[in-house]
Amino acid sequence: MTQRRESRTQVGIVGAGPAGLVLAKLLALAGVDSVVLEARDRAYVEARVRAGVLEAPTVELLRGMGVAGRLDREGMPHTGISLRFAEAPGAPAADHRIDFADLVGTGITVYGQQEVVKDLLADRLDDAGLPVEFGVSGVALHDVDTDAPSVTYADADGAEHVLRCDVIAGCDGFHGVSRPLVAPDVAERVYPFSWLGVLAKAAPTTDELVYAHHDDGFALYSMRSPEVTRLYVQVPNDTRPADWSDARIWDALHTRLACEGFTMNEGEFLEKPSVTPMRSMVASPMRRGRLFLAGDAAHIVPPTGAKGMNLAIADVRVLAEAVVRALRDGDTGGLDSYSDTCLRRVWRAEHFSWFMTSMLHRFDPATEGGDAFGVGLQRSQLRYTVTSRAAATSLAENYVGLPHGAV
Amino acid sequence: MTQRRESRTQVGIVGAGPAGLVLAKLLALAGVDSVVLEARDRAYVEARVRAGVLEAPTVELLRGMGVAGRLDREGMPHTGISLRFAEAPGAPAADHRIDFADLVGTGITVYGQQEVVKDLLADRLDDAGLPVEFGVSGVALHDVDTDAPSVTYADADGAEHVLRCDVIAGCDGFHGVSRPLVAPDVAERVYPFSWLGVLAKAAPTTDELVYAHHDDGFALYSMRSPEVTRLYVQVPNDTRPADWSDARIWDALHTRLACEGFTMNEGEFLEKPSVTPMRSMVASPMRRGRLFLAGDAAHIVPPTGAKGMNLAIADVRVLAEAVVRALRDGDTGGLDSYSDTCLRRVWRAEHFSWFMTSMLHRFDPATEGGDAFGVGLQRSQLRYTVTSRAAATSLAENYVGLPHGAV
Repeated sequence: MTQRRESRTQVGIVGAGPAGLVLAKLLALAGVDSVVLEARDRAYVEARVRAGVLEAPTVELLRGMGVAGRLDREGMPHTGISLRFAEAPGAPAADHRIDFADLVGTGITVYGQQEVVKDLLADRLDDAGLPVEFGVSGVALHDVDTDAPSVTYADADGAEHVLRCDVIAGCDGFHGVSRPLVAPDVAERVYPFSWLGVLAKAAPTTDELVYAHHDDGFALYSMRSPEVTRLYVQVPNDTRPADWSDARIWDALHTRLACEGFTMNEGEFLEKPSVTPMRSMVASPMRRGRLFLAGDAAHIVPPTGAKGMNLAIADVRVLAEAVVRALRDGDTGGLDSYSDTCLRRVWRAEHFSWFMTSMLHRFDPATEGGDAFGVGLQRSQLRYTVTSRAAATSLAENYVGLPHGAV
Repeated sequence: MTQRRESRTQVGIVGAGPAGLVLAKLLALAGVDSVVLEARDRAYVEARVRAGVLEAPTVELLRGMGVAGRLDREGMPHTGISLRFAEAPGAPAADHRIDFADLVGTGITVYGQQEVVKDLLADRLDDAGLPVEFGVSGVALHDVDTDAPSVTYADADGAEHVLRCDVIAGCDGFHGVSRPLVAPDVAERVYPFSWLGVLAKAAPTTDELVYAHHDDGFALYSMRSPEVTRLYVQVPNDTRPADWSDARIWDALHTRLACEGFTMNEGEFLEKPSVTPMRSMVASPMRRGRLFLAGDAAHIVPPTGAKGMNLAIADVRVLAEAVVRALRDGDTGGLDSYSDTCLRRVWRAEHFSWFMTSMLHRFDPATEGGDAFGVGLQRSQLRYTVTSRAAATSLAENYVGLPHGAV
């Protein structure tokens, strides 16, 4: 048997995405030790392009943690979005703005997930001098039902380790080792479409995101900086990026985003087009013994609601407080209520993401979602959302993010 | 060929339900002639039990027409409803009131559709001395694409008639002769469940309606008078009333409506239990030439949103104004926009009725609506509806009825 190097920490964190890194920082601020294990290397993690919308409560939390300097300089505050749709089949599309500032007094910030990750890694590695164990493999969790759980893994050089912990945080995504130990069965929904996404070197022509409902399928017009546009089109689930030439992508974007007075700048693609399947998933409960799931390990949302990273960060805020209370004060109440507390917000975000996805995408006309009645429901929902203050407020408060603890 | 008796009117109205009778009254008030044809007799029409909730704009309209004397004396004004559900599987159910008065400053009135019909018939037949042709058969519509449409029918004695009109109003329901001429294809949704309804001689124990979400299926607690309770339970679509003994019905009601502090009076059933299938349908457009559809001929909603009669009355309000404008002023603008104007409100009610139905019923666990994710969405939607003022307002404004002309 190989000799294993033993070490000890209070919290073993599996995964260095936003959930793992925010948790590590919140624990460090409270004087709680943690070790962060990550399968990939730093460069990979920092380049992993994901969501780009931060809820108001997420921004506040990052500010409170002292890691929002660059976010405050480079992030783009938005106080609304537009829904673009035709009120009747064949009618021209028009923009209907949902004014977050007016409706709920706040807004969102456009700032890529990978930028948040960069900032958190810079803070931990470069400023605080704390480690992240990159390039680990063979991660396995042990004795999670006891008071003395542990993590075994091989480090980037192949050396075997045993990490003994008080608590393990499974921040390692749906395919990680944590989720199957806690919730082998999940509630899920697979949508019959995907998003093809491109990042174009083109100045955005709108200040805010545009969500377009179109007979050909959904399109999203968004931006990552004053020079870079982020664009998505709904495509069938079996789509290979190679099936879509650059010209075909621009054609689809021009068709689906067409609207009186709207022009779009084209530009070279800064990375290869990618295809993202759309899926909803909830693992329940989010805890088994001393193992706690957070972020994508516990839940997946389709990107239409822009909730993924925000939900991960909301989880670990609750978890950090619960862990600190347990390890410092010996009060396990927060750990005991962790799953229920998080799942309320998780389900709110799942419902909102499903709502946005269902309202905006084109479904197969041979199915309930896409038949004449289904499309009529979509148009009525869209029209109602932009004409009723109550309905618009409902969309707005979900989009900007209900206050942490309010859900 | 049989000799037909010829007569002439301005508006031929097929069907003496709420749509036909309200239309006839509104036209009479404006000095426009109409003839109302009805296949059944007066006693049948007055006993046809249907919906029992009047929206605020419906009550205002009936008052303005001078036919709300008894409604104002006997109707029961409600300023809210309760949603009864368990926040988590296995948890006890609790009531969550949606306070219409607080949220939208108005309410609804509980008053049976057959009472509205009785009042309208008494006004027309007994007070105004105007006729309704009861017991007609073989109704056929002719030349609706011309300026001189006509209706042929046999009266209750078998005599054949030709009624020449300027306009025909098809208020004869889905299975009537009007709808197929205008919109042979419809948008529709058939739900995988029905309502078994009973009328019990039992004093209601709540002042307002209770909509209960339960693992066994939906139940609705409502009332028709201080002595009569109206109760419904969700049942499978193939249910025969004979399959449900009185005891089984009360058992299901007690189980599904169970809630701390809630008791229910039992009492004999005043009529045989009935089974109502749940269906959504929209015929579009609602006009062909000089033939205009109104009420159930143009749209059907599941009863969960309490919208059927209200929508019928909203239609004919628009139609009466349009007909008067056309016949008196020669301006056909109202007739030309009739279908679009009505369909906006129709689709709003269709969406709301679908929303209420989807949120409250138990779906087959083998389908998307009833699987773990579907049930999670329902619970999250219920919880959100009763905790967010915006979401509660959205339910309230739809339930009490958006102002006529605002949709």
